[in-house]
Amino acid sequence: MSPSNIGAYKVEGKVDYDLFAEQYGLKQIDKELEKKIEKYTGPLHFLLKRKIFYAHRELDWILDEYEKGNPFYLYTGRAPSGPMHIGHLIPFVFAKWLQDKFDVDIYIQIPDEEKFLAKDLNQSLDEIHQVAIDNVLDIIALGFKKKKTKIFFDTQYAGKMYKQAVRVAKHITFSTVKDAFGYGNDTNIGALFYTSMQAVPAFLKSAEEGHNIPCLIPLAIDQDVHFRVARDVLAKLGYYKPSIIYTKFLPSLNGESKMSSSNERSAIYLNDTPEAVKEKVGKALTGQQATAALQKKHGGNPDACMVCQYNKFFFEPNDKKLEYILNGERNGTILAGEHKADLTKKINAFLRKHKSKREHYREYLDDYMVHD
Amino acid sequence: MSPSNIGAYKVEGKVDYDLFAEQYGLKQIDKELEKKIEKYTGPLHFLLKRKIFYAHRELDWILDEYEKGNPFYLYTGRAPSGPMHIGHLIPFVFAKWLQDKFDVDIYIQIPDEEKFLAKDLNQSLDEIHQVAIDNVLDIIALGFKKKKTKIFFDTQYAGKMYKQAVRVAKHITFSTVKDAFGYGNDTNIGALFYTSMQAVPAFLKSAEEGHNIPCLIPLAIDQDVHFRVARDVLAKLGYYKPSIIYTKFLPSLNGESKMSSSNERSAIYLNDTPEAVKEKVGKALTGQQATAALQKKHGGNPDACMVCQYNKFFFEPNDKKLEYILNGERNGTILAGEHKADLTKKINAFLRKHKSKREHYREYLDDYMVHD
Repeated sequence: MSPSNIGAYKVEGKVDYDLFAEQYGLKQIDKELEKKIEKYTGPLHFLLKRKIFYAHRELDWILDEYEKGNPFYLYTGRAPSGPMHIGHLIPFVFAKWLQDKFDVDIYIQIPDEEKFLAKDLNQSLDEIHQVAIDNVLDIIALGFKKKKTKIFFDTQYAGKMYKQAVRVAKHITFSTVKDAFGYGNDTNIGALFYTSMQAVPAFLKSAEEGHNIPCLIPLAIDQDVHFRVARDVLAKLGYYKPSIIYTKFLPSLNGESKMSSSNERSAIYLNDTPEAVKEKVGKALTGQQATAALQKKHGGNPDACMVCQYNKFFFEPNDKKLEYILNGERNGTILAGEHKADLTKKINAFLRKHKSKREHYREYLDDYMVHD
Repeated sequence: MSPSNIGAYKVEGKVDYDLFAEQYGLKQIDKELEKKIEKYTGPLHFLLKRKIFYAHRELDWILDEYEKGNPFYLYTGRAPSGPMHIGHLIPFVFAKWLQDKFDVDIYIQIPDEEKFLAKDLNQSLDEIHQVAIDNVLDIIALGFKKKKTKIFFDTQYAGKMYKQAVRVAKHITFSTVKDAFGYGNDTNIGALFYTSMQAVPAFLKSAEEGHNIPCLIPLAIDQDVHFRVARDVLAKLGYYKPSIIYTKFLPSLNGESKMSSSNERSAIYLNDTPEAVKEKVGKALTGQQATAALQKKHGGNPDACMVCQYNKFFFEPNDKKLEYILNGERNGTILAGEHKADLTKKINAFLRKHKSKREHYREYLDDYMVHD
């Protein structure tokens, strides 16, 4: 299977994470690197321990520089087009942990033009703007440090970004984006240009401060293509190539590799009601046998069970409790109904808390946002 | 001869202005339209009378709207890469006259990224920025009204422009710019995107003020290609199509159709010394016969005489005096030496005055410039 099913704007079918890493030259995070991280962070985040953040580019170098007193800053982002789901939150949860442990700045790009240009959404930029503000509330609700976090919308921060994007764009030809993104003659020129905007935050802090600052990007693998194009260009402009740490996708409730925004029932949205959650989890794919009797006898497959996976990716941070759940699936001691009731409870508890934090943070929105 | 020699970034060989107008659907300015203009301006500017501004798109509509109490604003620009020559000044001289006569606002775009992206200049954006400021001084020295003039650099005004450019870009495909500009697979994505930035000032005032405002663009014909692409897009976005009034090129001193920045000796620069002017005019192509005796006998051709053309395009606003010069060439009563001495004197008088105005206006630079 080829990773060609992983496009920046569409992920289809089953994702082979090892193959993706091999094909594009990512290194998997090994024991040695884990220890190197632990030296600064203490106990690893479960997203690392569970190999959900599983691969990287030059993360070892970032840590060496940090050790030498040359700290990095973080950069990640979110292209708004609708409400966020749990899968969207994962890179931010991890980025927040990195910010806390390394006490570093983070730039969060909200490319509010990206999907407007890349997809046929029938949304105006002003409509997307409203969605984007909503997304930012979900992000800051995670508790990023106010004084170390800069969040910006491309259309509002272009006064700072466009000049730098132009410098990047000069080194990227149509051929390059054609091959990398599968663009063609009918692609609009805004979509063609866009990747240079996504490259900018990876060196903007260096450009602003007039000296080279390492940058670490927590990223879902489908976004790697932008940086496969940009990393060499940034080196040509005299900046460090950004380092990247890659996350797998939270699978969809029906078992697809990536939770998709385009199928509402396959994803848990941050604004879902308790009833909607209950219904969606109730219909989720499990790894269990056809009947309770068979399940009790043979057990099921936790890897194919979305209830197990949702616990593993997000809702059960405690390793022992997670092991209990996975074992219960494996051994047939926990049946689907119990499994699902437990997950539903956890999701709804999380969402209730999240919604309340979201409201709490609303008044601090302006403390996080930067404009031109 | 096909107008395919007139590219946005290169004009080669002889330009057939009538053919250009015919091929691209411009209308030539006729007696009737001249009268319509005169109604508001009084005596026509010599650039109109002499058919140097010779063609238009929907200028009659702009005047009808003006008559109805729906005034237009002007938009023109200058892509900086080096010092300006006399040819560059012509659209601004005319725009200034229009501003005075109609008492309207003008937006002047300084696309400081355009040539950086479109040409291989070995100039950084910061170097171009310095050149650009110098160009702006040459422009404001013409005496634009401070309160009715907005001048902006793309890299500094992108906070306002980028969002609007994205709206335009969504409607322009690679195919379109490939055909219109002759771009190919090796064109960089910044150059591909750029035309959407050039479209923005044609509706920016409408977007800013929230209602539709007619826009009139004084333009050299090589820039028409941007608006052949953009006019339909702006209509799709719900704005008026901009109207355009077209100027011919001031020929080069050696008789090429367009004074070129890339051949320094073919153009009179606004920062030329009196000695340089004398030398350049001394070497200029004239329409005269091989010897003074032959010239006296047969006369010469004013259309082929660059000394005559420079008087006609710029340095002799007085029609009677111009006729005297052209007749002198035609009849052989003025010889090349006298001709050239007279033009040299005029050019140097103009440049002396221009340089002094330039210094006078330097302190008002900030009154004209807008930033994000």
